Amino acid sequence: MKAATYLAKGQLELVDQPKPSIQKPTDAIVRMVKTTICGTDLHILGGDVPACQPGTILGHEGLGIVEEVGSAVSNFKVGDKVIVSCITSCNTCYYCKRQLPSHCESGGWILGHLINGTQAEYVHIPHADGSLYHAPKTVEDDGLVMLSDIFPTSYEIGVQASDVKPGDSVCIVGAGPVGLAALLTVQFYSPAKIIMIDLSQSRLEAAKKFGATHTICSSDLAEIKGEIDAITEGRGVDVSMECVGYPETFDICQKVVAIGGHIANLGVHGKPVSFELQDLWIKNISLSTGLVNANTTETLLNVLKSGKIDATQLVTHHFKLSEVDKAYEVFKNAGTNHALKVIIDNDITVV
Amino acid sequence: MKAATYLAKGQLELVDQPKPSIQKPTDAIVRMVKTTICGTDLHILGGDVPACQPGTILGHEGLGIVEEVGSAVSNFKVGDKVIVSCITSCNTCYYCKRQLPSHCESGGWILGHLINGTQAEYVHIPHADGSLYHAPKTVEDDGLVMLSDIFPTSYEIGVQASDVKPGDSVCIVGAGPVGLAALLTVQFYSPAKIIMIDLSQSRLEAAKKFGATHTICSSDLAEIKGEIDAITEGRGVDVSMECVGYPETFDICQKVVAIGGHIANLGVHGKPVSFELQDLWIKNISLSTGLVNANTTETLLNVLKSGKIDATQLVTHHFKLSEVDKAYEVFKNAGTNHALKVIIDNDITVV
Repeated sequence: MKAATYLAKGQLELVDQPKPSIQKPTDAIVRMVKTTICGTDLHILGGDVPACQPGTILGHEGLGIVEEVGSAVSNFKVGDKVIVSCITSCNTCYYCKRQLPSHCESGGWILGHLINGTQAEYVHIPHADGSLYHAPKTVEDDGLVMLSDIFPTSYEIGVQASDVKPGDSVCIVGAGPVGLAALLTVQFYSPAKIIMIDLSQSRLEAAKKFGATHTICSSDLAEIKGEIDAITEGRGVDVSMECVGYPETFDICQKVVAIGGHIANLGVHGKPVSFELQDLWIKNISLSTGLVNANTTETLLNVLKSGKIDATQLVTHHFKLSEVDKAYEVFKNAGTNHALKVIIDNDITVV
Repeated sequence: MKAATYLAKGQLELVDQPKPSIQKPTDAIVRMVKTTICGTDLHILGGDVPACQPGTILGHEGLGIVEEVGSAVSNFKVGDKVIVSCITSCNTCYYCKRQLPSHCESGGWILGHLINGTQAEYVHIPHADGSLYHAPKTVEDDGLVMLSDIFPTSYEIGVQASDVKPGDSVCIVGAGPVGLAALLTVQFYSPAKIIMIDLSQSRLEAAKKFGATHTICSSDLAEIKGEIDAITEGRGVDVSMECVGYPETFDICQKVVAIGGHIANLGVHGKPVSFELQDLWIKNISLSTGLVNANTTETLLNVLKSGKIDATQLVTHHFKLSEVDKAYEVFKNAGTNHALKVIIDNDITVV
């Protein structure tokens, strides 16, 4: 089969790989219909994720059709249309039993990281019962792909962890796909003010369409703080969400959070940040970090089914799997290409 | 009246000050019976709290008798025996209504900081109805003094913020009065393991008597981490509490916290810390900071009344107000003096 394979730092190619097969009774093989690219895939290509070995097929998101199931798989059968979660869950280990499948001892985020991923004709899914979701016919396929990672990530690690309440003021730093998904899901709880911060005017325009009440196109801390003080009567925001992953963006979040507020870190960080405890020890703030557990996938599926959110809004580009290199080129330069999520359709496998 | 007054950096003296009087209808004047010294008072003397002006009477803890009340005070009358809370609460401002009296717009921590405090014959208490508590006759006076600050601080900012659960493993860094009070109050929730870390063997011996299951007498991170890994099967602790206020002690907390765990910061910090988000972003941790709200004072009073905790265990020394300088000397060198809380009895005022 053809598969988008990480060959060396900066090098990804669609190469021939063996078609996967059932290895354990709990496995499934899924024929991919659609997949997408995540910012994390770019980090891998950049050499920032050393655990991902050259030769690995990338991708941890997508939609497909069950091709084969192991004898112990009980919730899925051949032919089922399924959402592939970015989190593989055994449902039985120490962490899964503590509601932390993100850290499943034989799963977690392994697809396109420690094992082959979804940017291919077929993917091998361990612990299929805990890692796949039935795809309803009533929701557009492109929208369902957003349930593999960005919607649960933004909802669990951003919105739920922040305990957003009606009337709150919320600041989201970074209007990329995860930041925008946080913008969409935070509206479940009716905050009064949602301030999006980014350097891309086109992303901020998307943010306005998606419900942001204010946008700030700046990286200047004094300017940002001034604008947020003006919006919040000098109190700062009840919730600040870090959706980028740099010390500078974290710094914005800690400087604009109100007394009694919360900082939710969604960004993937490569180095320590300076945490201003000399100011924050007294401010009664809380902070949270985390990898998605994907245990709200069904909840969010219900939201998409209800029509309350149109997740396809986040899709800006379509490519074929045979032109996956072009998809990466566009996504790498998302700013200039006005790209959010790029959908990659499997045009290779003949069913 | 005589009052322990902060005169200049490093200089505290018992000097004559005017006896306070009612200024607003919501005020009370309390004749002090007992007070104590807090680590924060040493920070003020060290010049670390510039908001506290020379000339201020120190102290934000104590027990006394109501001497006079303003016309709007409804819960207290002359002659009532009262606990003075370290937090002054108006009960009506933006922060009080959000359950954050620690940040009360005309209160919060002001006693012995922005206004004159309790290390004196008399103290002026603004917002008396929100800032005093009736002292029961059935609890020893020395124990009641512990309700002014250290018990609510350790319970609210340490234990409640951490959401400690039965069976949890807890690490408390710093076995001073607040750390030991956290050790006592965390046992409400039956954690399986409570590991106390300090450099003072005598404080760790106290910790063992108070219920610590393990003690570590070290500041060496590798040694601490090795011991905690051995105690927790390599998983780290569910809760780590920072009760000191230095980058090094914060670092211990962030290095020993388990996946899905919580860091509670109780220490008063003077500079930023390096927050290791490159490791922690993925670990699904939470963190909290804060000044005590003292909204659990009644709860903790019930605990003391029930006899479940003997708060006098934390009192190691007694002094007279007339010898307050000696009390400070002993408390400044708490390690060598094996001192925890020092009680200062008002021997000056003749009733």
